[in-house]
This record gives sequence, structure tokens and C-alpha cells, in this order.
Amino acid sequence: MYRLTSKICNGTTTTCGSRLTTHILSTRQYASATAAKTITNNKNVEDQDPLVNHATQNSSFDYEGVIENEVLKKRQDKSYRFFNNINRLAKEYPMAHRQSEADKVTVWCSNDYLALSKQPEVMDAMKRAIDKYGAGAGGTRNIAGHNILTMKLEAELAALHKKEGALVFSSCFVANDAVFSLFGQKIKDMIIFSDELNHASMIIGMKHSNLKKHIFKHNNLEELESMLKQYPKSTPKMIAFESVYSMAGSVADINKICDLAEKYGAMTFLDEVHAVGLYGPHGAGVAEHVDFEAHRKAGIASPSIKDNNGHKLALDRIDIITGTLGKSFGTVGGYVAANKHIIDFLRSYAPGFIFTTSLPPAVMAAASEAIRFQRGNIDLRTAQQKHTTYLKNGLQELGVPVVPNPSHIVPILIGNADLAKQASDMLMEKHKIYVQAINFPTVARGTERLRVTPTPGHTDELSDVMLDAMEDVFTELQLPRVNDWEAQGGFLGVGDPNAVREPNLWTETQLKYTNADLNPNVKSPVIQQLEVSSGIKE
Amino acid sequence: MYRLTSKICNGTTTTCGSRLTTHILSTRQYASATAAKTITNNKNVEDQDPLVNHATQNSSFDYEGVIENEVLKKRQDKSYRFFNNINRLAKEYPMAHRQSEADKVTVWCSNDYLALSKQPEVMDAMKRAIDKYGAGAGGTRNIAGHNILTMKLEAELAALHKKEGALVFSSCFVANDAVFSLFGQKIKDMIIFSDELNHASMIIGMKHSNLKKHIFKHNNLEELESMLKQYPKSTPKMIAFESVYSMAGSVADINKICDLAEKYGAMTFLDEVHAVGLYGPHGAGVAEHVDFEAHRKAGIASPSIKDNNGHKLALDRIDIITGTLGKSFGTVGGYVAANKHIIDFLRSYAPGFIFTTSLPPAVMAAASEAIRFQRGNIDLRTAQQKHTTYLKNGLQELGVPVVPNPSHIVPILIGNADLAKQASDMLMEKHKIYVQAINFPTVARGTERLRVTPTPGHTDELSDVMLDAMEDVFTELQLPRVNDWEAQGGFLGVGDPNAVREPNLWTETQLKYTNADLNPNVKSPVIQQLEVSSGIKE
Repeated sequence: MYRLTSKICNGTTTTCGSRLTTHILSTRQYASATAAKTITNNKNVEDQDPLVNHATQNSSFDYEGVIENEVLKKRQDKSYRFFNNINRLAKEYPMAHRQSEADKVTVWCSNDYLALSKQPEVMDAMKRAIDKYGAGAGGTRNIAGHNILTMKLEAELAALHKKEGALVFSSCFVANDAVFSLFGQKIKDMIIFSDELNHASMIIGMKHSNLKKHIFKHNNLEELESMLKQYPKSTPKMIAFESVYSMAGSVADINKICDLAEKYGAMTFLDEVHAVGLYGPHGAGVAEHVDFEAHRKAGIASPSIKDNNGHKLALDRIDIITGTLGKSFGTVGGYVAANKHIIDFLRSYAPGFIFTTSLPPAVMAAASEAIRFQRGNIDLRTAQQKHTTYLKNGLQELGVPVVPNPSHIVPILIGNADLAKQASDMLMEKHKIYVQAINFPTVARGTERLRVTPTPGHTDELSDVMLDAMEDVFTELQLPRVNDWEAQGGFLGVGDPNAVREPNLWTETQLKYTNADLNPNVKSPVIQQLEVSSGIKE
Repeated sequence: MYRLTSKICNGTTTTCGSRLTTHILSTRQYASATAAKTITNNKNVEDQDPLVNHATQNSSFDYEGVIENEVLKKRQDKSYRFFNNINRLAKEYPMAHRQSEADKVTVWCSNDYLALSKQPEVMDAMKRAIDKYGAGAGGTRNIAGHNILTMKLEAELAALHKKEGALVFSSCFVANDAVFSLFGQKIKDMIIFSDELNHASMIIGMKHSNLKKHIFKHNNLEELESMLKQYPKSTPKMIAFESVYSMAGSVADINKICDLAEKYGAMTFLDEVHAVGLYGPHGAGVAEHVDFEAHRKAGIASPSIKDNNGHKLALDRIDIITGTLGKSFGTVGGYVAANKHIIDFLRSYAPGFIFTTSLPPAVMAAASEAIRFQRGNIDLRTAQQKHTTYLKNGLQELGVPVVPNPSHIVPILIGNADLAKQASDMLMEKHKIYVQAINFPTVARGTERLRVTPTPGHTDELSDVMLDAMEDVFTELQLPRVNDWEAQGGFLGVGDPNAVREPNLWTETQLKYTNADLNPNVKSPVIQQLEVSSGIKE
């Protein structure tokens, strides 16, 4: 491939390959000469290119030119990514070292929300499993990759979400893709109703499903209802949403969505990736949180009571919950929790489950331990919330714009890809604070931000250091503050006089609970293996 | 969802839900009454159903009925899977315990081909990384999930395949899906030429690419050429194939495919998942093996010589190599090795890379150690080959049908899903030997098999036990032997008088090499981090 390109290239320019941009231009000309139809993004350029009809049978397509040109586009629009070398230290959390072990920074943007990846009980469980069962699973679930630790984890996950079953995937990206893809394959008339801010993995799964899709404005249930009511109740439907939207920190109204689902005969799909570990008395997510008292009293058991409105519990109303083991649960992997028939359906048909090596037994063991540990430690959740509030209040006093939300995410609005990167770089180089800049495609262009995620270990003292640093960066780079956004009429709820502030998900009462207020049955519960993890005997 | 179904269900049958089959029938009737159009697979039944036009606005679609019915289909065609509970013991390899720790079996079907998941150096590397960096990565590569151990692994992988770069994914399923999907998105006129036995992950990636695809008969390069020549050389093309096909053990002729690729201007995509660790002097796979001597002499360096035909080395001729960390390399995850532009292209655009939590630092460390360990231990590869040959010869003497192939896979042909499961169960229960039955969708219906995979630890003594057990199972279950297949004219090369036996990939000369015959530069090489792992500075 290289060879062909170089030959042609040497014939058409004298400086070919010496600098990337020069090289791109030359290969681009070549691409337009040999394969004009394929580079549809550059159609205007090609139409004007005098070489366009000179394609011959003697030249290959210029793969390299197209590939390099695509990367060049990322450089030009400032969305080209440089990954920071961050080595998070188990014994010095929330510190990490950079390339040199002596060069340490404070990490403020990890999704290890409860720092359970550093929890000795979790690390020890992982190491014990390595000693006993080795480093890897050695096969798919069907071929040598199914074991006691996997079944234990699936039982823990089902118990956490109070569902009949759970199934572990390589990641929640794979789990989300798998669920939508499979429903699309098996229920071809299904219509999907999807929140516009749903995660890429859900969007890709929906695309792979080939199902018809309606996208409703973020958390706009009136629009959702107007879409649902276009179809007979008997038409199969899936409402797909998240509980906590990761980049804005906004939260869905689960019960209202379930009301619509019941009214219009839809299944419900809820991604709790950024909520598990953080909400509910036991960390099952927002669907547990909305019935906080019932679950707190029942502990590991399923509450027999209904909530005050006579509704079923939200956890019962949701058909499919997906979550991750890679954020609050400190390890890696994803899962689906649902009734046993849905789990068996996925287990039996989803290619992303069937055709892939199982996660290592040690990861299964560590994730199980993380779930058990956090279940009985509501103190982790309340500490995380209090640190978030402290930081948000401090930023507000500085006039630093935070996209308002009722959750644990602190999205500091910058609104420009280049400035967001400069701010991130300055925090790192000058202040030894790591907060990654979030740009396209993770957020829409023009909404670039610094996404800060405090953990139980981000004390008020560390927050004070962070606040000073942020003040310095906003001043140095002359970044827009709340009043600047206000002068423009507000943006994303920042500086918007009409924006309605939602109360925090965690109420003052809930924040006062300690581990002693949990039902004692959450400590070291005995959880039985689930038949559906292996296959249901007839 | 349950509530709605149960209501209707209770009104139409008296035994609803008490036994699965009864329940299935009742919900199936309901499904046909409310959503006839959607269950396309059952169209004939529905067309005859008198309830079919009674759909009303009062009933939801019967999701549960459809889901249960799909699983019932698997039971009916005997492809419903029961996973065996296999806990592979690090210190007693190749033994595993079942549910009870006292109940031990010998594992004969793991894809941990070199047993590196049990190698103390690998396990220790994993535990050291946990001690230092914790259990999980805590974020995507962009957000706090990029670190020294990740860069080290990508440098090891690139060095192994003698490519400019490598990129680690959650799994090779995700990697394969990502590569095809992305090429489909960016080069919409590309045509894919795909071997009919390619793995599900490649097939799914091709489907997601939406590219036009030609499927050529397995390893039939005449047909491949006839397809390639239909297009101008300038039309973008990708030839997609594997080196070792996992379920048949057949092997592609890499150089001949590269000849065609050059002649017709195609890119080449080679999946080495079942070959890395096992072929080539340093375990880089079949693309290394075909230039065995050049690589053995050069060691970690790129050979400067060409092969005897004046061709470039096969490793240079392949554009994109994918592989796994979850089989011979004993851990979990997948990767792509290619030139730095292709790696940067994937790094910058592939959603399955961008939007997913990075593998744990400990997995990266263990995989790096496994690659380094096996690179210098050709003894592992030769032992594995010798054990395979011993077993294949023994089975041949017994007349037990093995699909002939030149690789390390021992596919024992059964040809029936039910009998394959019975054979697997009998091996387990009576003989304490675990060999999973392989059925649809992993292999085509009617080609069901027991897939045996010896490792360096499967000594001739263990093989003798296995051979006795297999003889017993074939006799007890009256399974077809080679002469039975021969009487039918042969099948899959078994009992086929016209079948041409390919020589083993490992020649007698190669099998005589020991670790001392490797270039000393493969021991503890210093491998530099790759810029493309983090982003290429302009």
C-alpha cells in the first residue's frame, strides 16, 4: 500500500511526505485523480479537479491519502485528541503520576467515582482470584469461560437491581449495542423512542438494529408522548433513556417515562452507567433512588410496599437496565439486568456476548467485591455528594459557569474546543491538576467543557486548591464566566434567568444517613447462583 | 410488561406459566392476536389464526411471548446452550474444578493455548500492577484511561507484528467490528471480499459497514480472483481473511492472497486471533511463520532480506492485522496492528474504541508480560505442536474422525447437535474430561463437533487418557467413525479419498528449534513507546 502511493507521490510533488500537510495535499490530488467518486466529502474540490477523469486500470485506490485526510480534518477542527499519560496510584489516590513517576498530579476527572478500584478489599479479591484461577478466562462463556466467579457476579448484579437475572458483557458499549441490535433482529416492527442525549453506544446499537427511531428533545416528555401516541398501543415500542446523562449531569424522570410506557405499551430501556454506585441507598442507581425509603428499609430484599402514589417500584417498572463495572464498580465490563427471559434471550442470541472471550475470573471477583462493598457503604455516596456540592458552590462564587444539574457531575462550560484544551493543559502544567477537555464527538461542537468528577477522596481542602487553580485559568485565558453567558441570553442553562433549577437527587434527609441506617441484611448477604446464567433446565 | 401479559394470559389459559412450554403456547396465541405482522418467522401460523385481526388500542405488544418463543426455538433445534461451570486452576493446570472444588476435570478445549494465563510471570505482572495502580482504569482512553502500561502493551504488539503501531480494544470482536464499520463509513465505495468461514465478528463488522461484499468459498483463491477482476484496480477493495480458522483449523495462503491484493489494488485484513502465540518463531502468527527463517534470524528486528521469491515479507504485505489478548496471550482484549496512519485513523474515529472504558492497567501489564514471555519461548510452541500431532495420530488410529488441517486445532466431527452434546456430557460425567460441544451458530448445522485444543501441558500421558475416553464415547454413543463418513463419500475432508492433505505449518526442521536458537535480542528487548498511542504531534 505504501509502495504504490510513494511512487505516484514522488512523481507529482517534490516535497512529498516531508511534512504532513504537504503530503496530505499531494495524496489528496492523487485520490481525486483515481477515485473521485469515493471521497464524497470533497465533492466540490473533485468536480473542479482537471485530473478527475484520468483514472486508469494501473493505479490502486489511494487508501493512505483518504486515511490521512480524515485525520487531518480532526486536526483542522481541533477535535484531534491527545491522550494524557495518567497513572492513577492505588496508594496515593486521587494522585497519579505522569510519564515520570516523580511528576504527580491530582486526578479530577476519573469515572472511578467511588475510587473502588483503589479499595483494598477490591484489589485483594482480584489478586486472590489470580492466584487461584490465573490471569484470563481462556475462552467464551460457552467454551471454558463460565465459572463460579462469573455466576456470582451475575447474581450480585441481579440482586443489586432486584431483577431475576443479569448478564455480563465485555463492556456496556457492547451490552447496549447488543440489546438494540437483537431487538431489531427479532422484532422488526419495533419503534425506538430515544432521548437526544443518549450515549453513543445506544445510538450505535439503534443504528445496528435497523429499527425506525424517533429522537425526542432531551428529557422532553411532552414531545416523547406526542411521538408515542402516533402508534397503536399494540405496535412494539422501546423507550430508551439514561438515568444520569454523563456529560451534562441531567437526570431523567424515570416514573414519568414509565407512566408513558405503560400508557402506550412500550418497553423501557434504562442506561444507569453513570448512576450505579452513586444513587439509591445501595448504589443500584436512580431507579432505586426514586424509591429510596422503601429500598433502604428492605435492604437486600424486594420491598413489598408500593410508593405513595400507588405505583409499582421504579426498579420493577423498568424492563431492561444496563450498567457498567468500569466506573463506580472500579473494574471493567458491562451488564444487562432484566427478567430471566430477556436475559436468556440475550444469552442465547447476542453475538457480542456469544463470540467473545469472557472477562477474567479476577475481574469478575473484583467487581463482585466492589458491588458488595459499596452496597453497605452509603457513606461513600453521601461523601461524594457533599464534595460535589462544595465544589459547585465554590465555582458559583467565582462566577465559573457550571451546567446546572441535580447530580454528581460538574460540567464547566467553555464552549470552544481550542480553549477547552488550553484550559486543560494549563491546569495540568501549571497547577498539577488533571481535568480532561471534553470535545466532539463526546459532546456537540460549541459545547466543549471541562468535566469534573469529585470522589469521596476529593476533600474540601483539595477542592480549595482546585478552585484557586480554576480561577487562575479562567482569568489567564479570559474564559467566559456566568455573566458573559448571561449577557448572551444564557446557554445550556448557564446564565439563563428562565432556567428552572432542579433540586439535588440526594435530599438533605438522605444525606444524613450513615452505614448504620441501612438494613443489616445488606452486610455479607448470601446470594444464590442464578440458573439463567448457565441455561434454564426444562 | 409482566403485568400486562399476565392479565391477558390468565384470561386465556388455566395453566399459564406453570410450565414453560404451556406458557409459550399461550403467549404465542396472544402475540398472534395483537401483533401478527411483527412475528414474521411464524407467518403461516398467524395467517391461519382467527384472532389475527382483533388487535385493539387496549393491548400492548406481547414482548414476553416473542422473547420466550425465540428461546424455545433454540431448545427445539437443540442449539440451546448450557454453559459448563469450569474453574481452571492456576496451580493444577490443565485441571479445573466444577461447582464443587473437589470435583475436578481435565480441560481439553480452552483457548488459553499456551496456558500463559497460568504462567507465574504473567500472574505476577498482573498482581504487581494491581498493587501499584488498582483494579480498573477508571475511564476511556481519553478520560483518565491512558497510561504507561497501555502504551507499553501497544508498543509490544507493534513490535511483535513489526508494524508501526497498534491499538488495544475491549476485545477482538470489538476491534474487528470497528475496523470494517469505520472503513464503511469513510470509504463508501469500498468492496469487501470475504472468506466464507470468517469469524462472526468480521461478518458483523462488514454488515455494519454497509459495504458491498463478495463471499468467496473457503480458501478458494480462484474464486476470489474471479471476483476481484470484476472491478477496476482503482476501485477500493478489502480482502478479509483469517490465518487459522478456529473451528476447522484450516489455514490461509497469505502470500497468494497478498499477490492478488497487489495485482488488483486491494487492502488486506488478516485476523490472527487463533494464530498469535502459536506460529512464527516469536508467536506473531502465520504471517510471521511464512518467513520463519528471516524472522528467527532477525529476532525483534525487522529482517532486511526478502524471501526467496523476491517478495516482501508477509508481515509487510498485510495492511491490517487483528489479534486477541484473550487466547494465547492469556488475558482479555483485542487489538489492531498496522501502520501509524491506520492506527491514528482508528484511534480518532472508531466509536468502539472511543466510547468505552479502557482495560485495567493490570490486564495491560499481564498481556505485555505474556507477549514478552512467549516471544523468547519457542519451546512452548513446539511442545504444543508435538502434543497436537500425538493426539491427532492417536485419534486416527482409533478411526475417530478429525477434520484434517495443518494447525493446532483438533476438530472431532460429530455432525449432529444432540449427539455432540451427549458426547461432551459423557466425557465430562464419566471420564472427567471437559470438551465443549460446538454447535450453531459457531459452526453450521450438521457440522457439529468436539473441538480439542492441546496445550504445552497436555502431555502424551494425558492424551492417552483422552484417547481411551474418546474410544469409549464413540463406542457407547455409536458415533460415526472415519469409515462411516467414507461410506458416504466423505465430509469436510473426513473419509474423502480425494482430499489433499496439507503439510503441517510447523516443519520438522522448525520443530527442532529450541529457545537457544532464537536471536538473543528477543530476551528482554527495550521497546520504545509509540507516539501514535497518545496522538501524533504535528
